Amino acid sequence: MGALGEALTAGINVVPFTWAASPAATEREIVVVDWLGKALHLPKSLLFEGGGVTLLGTSSEAILCVLVAARDRKLAEVGEGRRVGHLVVYCSDQTHFAFRKAAHVAGIGNENSCAIPAGSQDMYALPPAMLEATMKADAEAGMTPLFLCASIGTAATTAVDSIHELCAVASPHGVWVHVDAAYAGSALICPVFRHLVNGVEDVDSLSMNPHKWLLSNNDCCALWLKQPSALVAALGTDDDVILKDTAATADDGMLVDYKDWQISLTRRFRALKVWLVLRGYGTDGLRDVVRAHVRMAAAFQDMVGADARFEVVAPRVFSLVCFRLRRPTMTTTLPEDNELNRRLLAEVNATGEGPYMSCAVVGGAYVLRFAVGSTLTEERHVRDAWKVVQEHATLILASSMQNMHA
Amino acid sequence: MGALGEALTAGINVVPFTWAASPAATEREIVVVDWLGKALHLPKSLLFEGGGVTLLGTSSEAILCVLVAARDRKLAEVGEGRRVGHLVVYCSDQTHFAFRKAAHVAGIGNENSCAIPAGSQDMYALPPAMLEATMKADAEAGMTPLFLCASIGTAATTAVDSIHELCAVASPHGVWVHVDAAYAGSALICPVFRHLVNGVEDVDSLSMNPHKWLLSNNDCCALWLKQPSALVAALGTDDDVILKDTAATADDGMLVDYKDWQISLTRRFRALKVWLVLRGYGTDGLRDVVRAHVRMAAAFQDMVGADARFEVVAPRVFSLVCFRLRRPTMTTTLPEDNELNRRLLAEVNATGEGPYMSCAVVGGAYVLRFAVGSTLTEERHVRDAWKVVQEHATLILASSMQNMHA
Repeated sequence: MGALGEALTAGINVVPFTWAASPAATEREIVVVDWLGKALHLPKSLLFEGGGVTLLGTSSEAILCVLVAARDRKLAEVGEGRRVGHLVVYCSDQTHFAFRKAAHVAGIGNENSCAIPAGSQDMYALPPAMLEATMKADAEAGMTPLFLCASIGTAATTAVDSIHELCAVASPHGVWVHVDAAYAGSALICPVFRHLVNGVEDVDSLSMNPHKWLLSNNDCCALWLKQPSALVAALGTDDDVILKDTAATADDGMLVDYKDWQISLTRRFRALKVWLVLRGYGTDGLRDVVRAHVRMAAAFQDMVGADARFEVVAPRVFSLVCFRLRRPTMTTTLPEDNELNRRLLAEVNATGEGPYMSCAVVGGAYVLRFAVGSTLTEERHVRDAWKVVQEHATLILASSMQNMHA
Repeated sequence: MGALGEALTAGINVVPFTWAASPAATEREIVVVDWLGKALHLPKSLLFEGGGVTLLGTSSEAILCVLVAARDRKLAEVGEGRRVGHLVVYCSDQTHFAFRKAAHVAGIGNENSCAIPAGSQDMYALPPAMLEATMKADAEAGMTPLFLCASIGTAATTAVDSIHELCAVASPHGVWVHVDAAYAGSALICPVFRHLVNGVEDVDSLSMNPHKWLLSNNDCCALWLKQPSALVAALGTDDDVILKDTAATADDGMLVDYKDWQISLTRRFRALKVWLVLRGYGTDGLRDVVRAHVRMAAAFQDMVGADARFEVVAPRVFSLVCFRLRRPTMTTTLPEDNELNRRLLAEVNATGEGPYMSCAVVGGAYVLRFAVGSTLTEERHVRDAWKVVQEHATLILASSMQNMHA
């Protein structure tokens, strides 16, 4: 459905960078992203009723856009000799590296980019108390807290930061709070997950990628904002070369020129594929997809849990299971155990029959990541995948024992 | 062909952000963009033989990427307390606004973004002597010249900056020279236009959009670089979550992970559509397309020139003709004449039968822009388009004379 949408879009080949350049595509986008926001149970303050929404290519782009908007707003606020070098941005050490890269592009160096440790004791979520202490110390040192990137579904383990608590910490400092829900935002379509974004009414922006788990082809990132005018102030341009519909602008001055909501001038008409997916599957159909994936991941987690040689590393929340081989003997060191897990991943991925998994390092431990995300995946695939993992684990552990005794 | 490429790509849905994520797509891209560079007569220093090439979405993105690379390289060079506020970037007042927007995103404010006036006496090209004087004055004032964005085909009139002379001015200052050839870069496929980029061996980077005039669907921007390592140093990331092919990396350390050449992590597989276009049309076929468009634009220019009520505003170089109604009487003021031209554009665009044109303001004069760029355009369309323009001009001039006598 997403691919069909892409193919149709390629045939139409419109470029909705201003309303005038393609009124139909712009209006379609406005409608579709509002539908999507409602389907994900997002508050009115982020929909067009109170804020605004756009479709970009990637979360990296979305984060860079809001970061520049926040930067410019803050510098205008504090004024008088304050410059970008005084601004500090915050995330956890589990936040996707896209955030610190975006900060770097926007001129905020690593030294002003603060990654708060989020360990297993916090279930890898950003600890609000630590953020509070850090922001306070920075402010006292004459720095200006600017931006917080919270995550719903971190890259490594899909940990969920507490939006409500983090907003309570950030808001007294006038910090822009962005929620990166690139992968897990799709799960919000199921009411059962809605509580994970409690407090989202207080955030300034939220982005998620329908191309990750809502069957819309790459690339597609929806960005909701409380104050689109801050984005337009930072990224808006005016030039005679750009065709405008002066009559329509004069009418109510509320025209959306999406070129002013992003880095580039040119943009893709991504709303068509999202529209096709929403109309084709319906909210119920998409919920079924998400639920089925979550159920299969839960089944995989149970299988891992039932094999004493393995451990589940972080609590599964969505459709990703993080697991690893436990240290096979009391004397096995963590580096040795990491090496076993690295071998396990390499061998399983090399089979071509088993699952294709990725990895992460969490708290020093090398972790295998099993994700369910394709519409073609069935329970039997998950069972077979686990069998392949078990078989290779058996071989690897046997050879490692042999080496120990050699 | 471009649309077919997009459709196929949507079906394949690979995401070649690292070599390991899709070796075939990455290698295909490396081959195709080198072909494209050779077809455009670009020097070896910009191809993989001496430099490197990538496919991004837009010129705005390309410019932002190289600007960040240049910024980081320069700050590392000058070091010790020099910060982004000391850096100055240069362009002409005819340069696409994407450049100043990119500079703004990268933390370089308008006050450090210098637009040199390029008037009709210079055929709207950036005057090298003025650039030289400005850079000298800035350096003497303690600022650090950082970046020059030269244009082959400016947005308003497709003016061509003198790459050779500009490089001679910029290079003693260690300035990164980028050439924005978004639209006109496609014309370099015809040997007759090759001389327009004389001196291109000396530039640091060049970008052009095959989606504009080389029949590849939106979005598609090729970026050639002399020193890709500067880009990777600025935009490269390392994270355990990203799957890498360690064996292949160890092999020769020369793997291209295109995620490190751009702002976003995720990227589209754009090489397939460019490959289809290059293979489908061949260099000769694409030359024929460009030549036909240039010929038709030249014919349109001749028709404009033969009607004394009109003037051609800037010398046509490629397939864009900039023209306007002359002041109908000695007493007509420039604002009144601009208003006539504004009406002419609005009325012609509203017919639905005539051409759909855009506009620009050049040296205070409102200008109509007639571009030939579609494969479906034939000479008869151009003749008919001109007739529609003439008819509306007759009506507008008659009513304006009536108003004057009323």
